[in-house]
Amino acid sequence: MIKAYKKDCNYSYTAGFFPTFELINNKKDKLRCIYVSSNSKSSSGYLKLLQLVDNRKIIFSDNIFSKLKEKDNDHIIGVFDKYEEELEPNLPHVVLVNPSDMGNLGNIMRSMLAFNYLDLAIITPSCDRYNPKTIRSSMGACFSIRQELFSSFEDYLNKYRKEYFPFMLQAKNYMHEIKKPLDNNYALVFGNEASGLDISYLNKQAIKIEQSDKVDSLNLATAVVLALYDFKFNKN
Amino acid sequence: MIKAYKKDCNYSYTAGFFPTFELINNKKDKLRCIYVSSNSKSSSGYLKLLQLVDNRKIIFSDNIFSKLKEKDNDHIIGVFDKYEEELEPNLPHVVLVNPSDMGNLGNIMRSMLAFNYLDLAIITPSCDRYNPKTIRSSMGACFSIRQELFSSFEDYLNKYRKEYFPFMLQAKNYMHEIKKPLDNNYALVFGNEASGLDISYLNKQAIKIEQSDKVDSLNLATAVVLALYDFKFNKN
Repeated sequence: MIKAYKKDCNYSYTAGFFPTFELINNKKDKLRCIYVSSNSKSSSGYLKLLQLVDNRKIIFSDNIFSKLKEKDNDHIIGVFDKYEEELEPNLPHVVLVNPSDMGNLGNIMRSMLAFNYLDLAIITPSCDRYNPKTIRSSMGACFSIRQELFSSFEDYLNKYRKEYFPFMLQAKNYMHEIKKPLDNNYALVFGNEASGLDISYLNKQAIKIEQSDKVDSLNLATAVVLALYDFKFNKN
Repeated sequence: MIKAYKKDCNYSYTAGFFPTFELINNKKDKLRCIYVSSNSKSSSGYLKLLQLVDNRKIIFSDNIFSKLKEKDNDHIIGVFDKYEEELEPNLPHVVLVNPSDMGNLGNIMRSMLAFNYLDLAIITPSCDRYNPKTIRSSMGACFSIRQELFSSFEDYLNKYRKEYFPFMLQAKNYMHEIKKPLDNNYALVFGNEASGLDISYLNKQAIKIEQSDKVDSLNLATAVVLALYDFKFNKN
């Protein structure tokens, strides 16, 4: 039986039917096993599960749930091997520099999937993209989003050479006023929740989202979803 | 000393310096008193507080914080009288039909303030706009947003007669394709988190936000912030 997740594990896990189905549908080759509680055997989710995976992968266990401290009511846990991927060079990228909040990171993956952005670069240090909390916040979208880690933004740029738009409060351009790229060769770059991007990122394409001075800056996940939507649909 | 909040109290309270300053700056006439812990007397927030309010309104107490079970680290609580307001008829409105999640409701108020939408109609039944949780999620934006409750959407329309745009999955128009109103005589209408708007809301102006079928519908607070932004800045 697996142990509760720690950062240095070579595995992680989903909890609940929906994220577990996302795992199975998108990364079946990484699936190790699925734990199911005995009382969920009668659920419709379990019947669907049987159609999707080889039943030798299914392990019945009632104490794994308390052991992992997963609060999920569905009583299903999907264990998978961590994996590395490269981004698709010819699609737009999202770059998060030093994201620190797992809830935000998962949320952002979910927004990316909603607007069909499938490639995420994460500049380390960052919070753990494989922590079950991140996976839960993403509602399993993490298995549809290609993710690649870089130790610096320069390393990212050296590899992918995208036109990039840093989001920062010091920018002069408002997002709704700029001309959005018509091709896919661009990256949207966002800084850490507390500190944002440092001044070295400031370029002619730097963007800010117009907002009232009566509130603090927008939450990171909110800023990202507004940018994804605007770059996708408002190519003025 | 006040008791922990319940829905039928005629008062509610903020926790923490930031929301308490929002209360003082926007609704000073509703302020009853401010509880401060003895050890926060040396903080910079306390010095600022002394400049903003009559010190007869300040009460030192160390056990009110455990009594109210407020986890706030700042150790300041601002008590205020609940109040009723009417909306400004000549500004755009946001209408939430039966919102059930206090975190979402507070979040939406914060997004409204960020994009300068100051008028919120709430169709009951709904979660409690005065619960300290809602106030905390709004980060005090609730004190800048006019709020008016209606027992039905018809009552709202009879009073304010706005052109309205219901957001619903059954709509035929994508938000990024429609012509946004150039005047302020409109309302953006959103349904309950789980059930959305029922079919009776469907009109020619009904809108949906284009998104991938790989994710569930967008979270209510996310849909609202996208709409506020798009109606504000993308008047194509």
